[in-house]
Amino acid sequence: MLSKTVADYLRANRARHVASLKELLSIPSIANVTGEKVDSCRTAAQWLARHLSALGLSAEVVPAGGKPNVLAEGRAGDGLPTLLIYGHYDVQPPDPLELWASKPFEPAQRDGFLYARGASDNKGQIFAHLTALEAWVRAGGGLPVNVKVIIEGEEEIGSPNLDPFIRQHADRLRSDAIIISDSGFFAEGVPSITYSLRGLAYFEITLTGPAADLHSGSHGGAVVNPINALARLIAGMQDADGRVTLPGFYDDVLPLTDQERSAWADLPFDESAYARELGVDKAAGGETGYSILERRWARPTLDANGIVGGYIEPGAKTVIPARASAKVSCRLVPNQDPEKITAGMRQYLDANVPAGTRVELAVHATARPVMVSQDAPAMNAAKAALAEAFGAEPVMVRCGASVPITELFQRILGRDGVLMGFGLPADSIHSPNERFKLEQFYRGAVAAAALLQNVRDAGL
Amino acid sequence: MLSKTVADYLRANRARHVASLKELLSIPSIANVTGEKVDSCRTAAQWLARHLSALGLSAEVVPAGGKPNVLAEGRAGDGLPTLLIYGHYDVQPPDPLELWASKPFEPAQRDGFLYARGASDNKGQIFAHLTALEAWVRAGGGLPVNVKVIIEGEEEIGSPNLDPFIRQHADRLRSDAIIISDSGFFAEGVPSITYSLRGLAYFEITLTGPAADLHSGSHGGAVVNPINALARLIAGMQDADGRVTLPGFYDDVLPLTDQERSAWADLPFDESAYARELGVDKAAGGETGYSILERRWARPTLDANGIVGGYIEPGAKTVIPARASAKVSCRLVPNQDPEKITAGMRQYLDANVPAGTRVELAVHATARPVMVSQDAPAMNAAKAALAEAFGAEPVMVRCGASVPITELFQRILGRDGVLMGFGLPADSIHSPNERFKLEQFYRGAVAAAALLQNVRDAGL
Repeated sequence: MLSKTVADYLRANRARHVASLKELLSIPSIANVTGEKVDSCRTAAQWLARHLSALGLSAEVVPAGGKPNVLAEGRAGDGLPTLLIYGHYDVQPPDPLELWASKPFEPAQRDGFLYARGASDNKGQIFAHLTALEAWVRAGGGLPVNVKVIIEGEEEIGSPNLDPFIRQHADRLRSDAIIISDSGFFAEGVPSITYSLRGLAYFEITLTGPAADLHSGSHGGAVVNPINALARLIAGMQDADGRVTLPGFYDDVLPLTDQERSAWADLPFDESAYARELGVDKAAGGETGYSILERRWARPTLDANGIVGGYIEPGAKTVIPARASAKVSCRLVPNQDPEKITAGMRQYLDANVPAGTRVELAVHATARPVMVSQDAPAMNAAKAALAEAFGAEPVMVRCGASVPITELFQRILGRDGVLMGFGLPADSIHSPNERFKLEQFYRGAVAAAALLQNVRDAGL
Repeated sequence: MLSKTVADYLRANRARHVASLKELLSIPSIANVTGEKVDSCRTAAQWLARHLSALGLSAEVVPAGGKPNVLAEGRAGDGLPTLLIYGHYDVQPPDPLELWASKPFEPAQRDGFLYARGASDNKGQIFAHLTALEAWVRAGGGLPVNVKVIIEGEEEIGSPNLDPFIRQHADRLRSDAIIISDSGFFAEGVPSITYSLRGLAYFEITLTGPAADLHSGSHGGAVVNPINALARLIAGMQDADGRVTLPGFYDDVLPLTDQERSAWADLPFDESAYARELGVDKAAGGETGYSILERRWARPTLDANGIVGGYIEPGAKTVIPARASAKVSCRLVPNQDPEKITAGMRQYLDANVPAGTRVELAVHATARPVMVSQDAPAMNAAKAALAEAFGAEPVMVRCGASVPITELFQRILGRDGVLMGFGLPADSIHSPNERFKLEQFYRGAVAAAALLQNVRDAGL
């Protein structure tokens, strides 16, 4: 049980904590920016380091190749366990801007929600943990356990520089337990712990035909049109049953267990309500033969994330374009290997690119899928903390998204993280009007504070 | 034979004529603009009407629903034949701007060429005819035949308002012969008369899935991705032999005659040189079983002219987009009907759009294919004029592009036009760095002047 003074402190300081979070959300630390705009990422990292220093932790902004990471450490005592807390300060690009009801980097409170890019993913969630640290320091007589913090700056672009960073700083990150704060509840009122994440292989395919745009009347029928050819390539990547056709794609896929299929069938999930929420008449994507949760959590995908070529302004222009390109990414499940998937993509393109065109394949990001042990040392501490803060027993779920650090911690530090997050399905992360429910933020901070107590009590 | 005084006048005034043409080319009368930019189109039309008035013709800018047309008439005498001359002042959009060596609306003379958007298509060509009229008026003792001129403003967007315009002004356009100045030479040194043009059906297909962009991790595998689905739709519009699969697409296609196939095989056309010129290793588009010229001139096509959806900025963003759209157009050959092709497209989409998405089909432009009589009354006059000006007998060819007026003249006025143009294949019309060879302009004006003489001599 969390001490009453810590809980009271959190309750009494809610308005101030929200005001601080709004400051952090006002910094446009967009993941995929380059050039001068990277300054905003540095600003967010510095803000966090200052905030942690003010709580008495030793904190610094550490270069990482691309955007920097924030590392911090607070000591409670030599005999006490050490907990590592992970979050990220980078956020998805906010576009399309015209669909936001309030501006993405001017946080707005409406109807019990805080609206801003990054409100849920991940600034709001990691800030719940930092708020818990503050409560212990200011009202609980100091940190109950040794705490390490890593807040990275490139999660939303697939953490391209994180592998060498974790290797280089392995000693500074060494801990007895890891909490990863970048996941969510299965549903409102259903706290959840995630034990598997999908990986990612994100490609950009550029198909080049003629040296310049051509008149579609004069030359139509003579040359291969790069848009038509690219459409054919993308269409051919999946068969009529939604299965991906890249060579070797399913070779290493870990099948669903009967236990998983039956447990997920029991979760409170209404397929029609889900479709309605997304605005489609039917959630008809992915492979036939699997439920929606199975397709989202445990089956790999291939999705085009963007495509462009030729004339895209209003009206008509009769050109055969010189080139067309698409961003195509695969979500991977245990035990698929992004390198093998990339090789399969290359092999597919080489075999299918038509004469009269040239293809270029760029790999923007890869992340391995991961499955963590369901009885990692901190698991029970986290479950109890969630139950205490939210008044319901947590369920064990998988998640379709990637949090690359999870796999890196497992592979490099040899330790499984506990994915304890406070997001809700309707938070619109990666979409316009991202939000974080304030009640989730308040209770999330209580859960984070209780977790520290439970880790100390368990003496991990 | 053209009178020496007219020929001498044309030679003596070349520099001034090029300077006037540059003025016209400086006006950005882009075909597909809307709003205030339409003013540039009006400016071009007014410039032409003033120019024609200064030659003594009665000329006016006539509203036509969209951009206005220029109509003019010059009388030579009641017993003389009347020749109608057609051209257009609207031009293709100039983008991609970054590929132009000099600015598209700042005409630049280099190495015997005039570079500007519209230099060849069609301002330079129609201006050769106006220059011929000037020579007759100033140096030939007046026009040798009655002349009517129509210069339209919407050719490059498929002449959407031209049908009612021609109907309304049928009397003003009545003539004994029609010259259409919007075609080209088969090759440099090979003057050509075009007897068939392809038509057009230009569509925009928009596929909508979820109400907003979604996180491709959280929802990938659950919903149909509009880009993947659109790619599949476009890919399915052609089979492995490059044949279009829209229902009824080939029903009305007029087969090539043996005479055409054999005549075209004799034309000086080097398939590898053509591919090299376009910058492809092989001109591998269109249907199997037909030569390149056959595919460009006498077979229908389906080409995507533009496509856009999802995230198209640099880097990675892991979204499933809410929508994707493509501009797709078919070049049609005699005797295909754009209305039937549009119905076939609708039928194809209705049958193939997947659950979980909605489709919208917009029709941006249609034009019927046309074939004119090869012994129209003015045909011999035009052949002799070309032979005289360029020193070579013209060949009879088809053209893959559309010039909608040709079919409208035939259908509404009941008269076949003679397509006598001066463009060259390397003019890069519709592409960056469009140009017109000055020698073609000079000799084109001579041919246009000789044509007037020949029409008078023939007493059509």
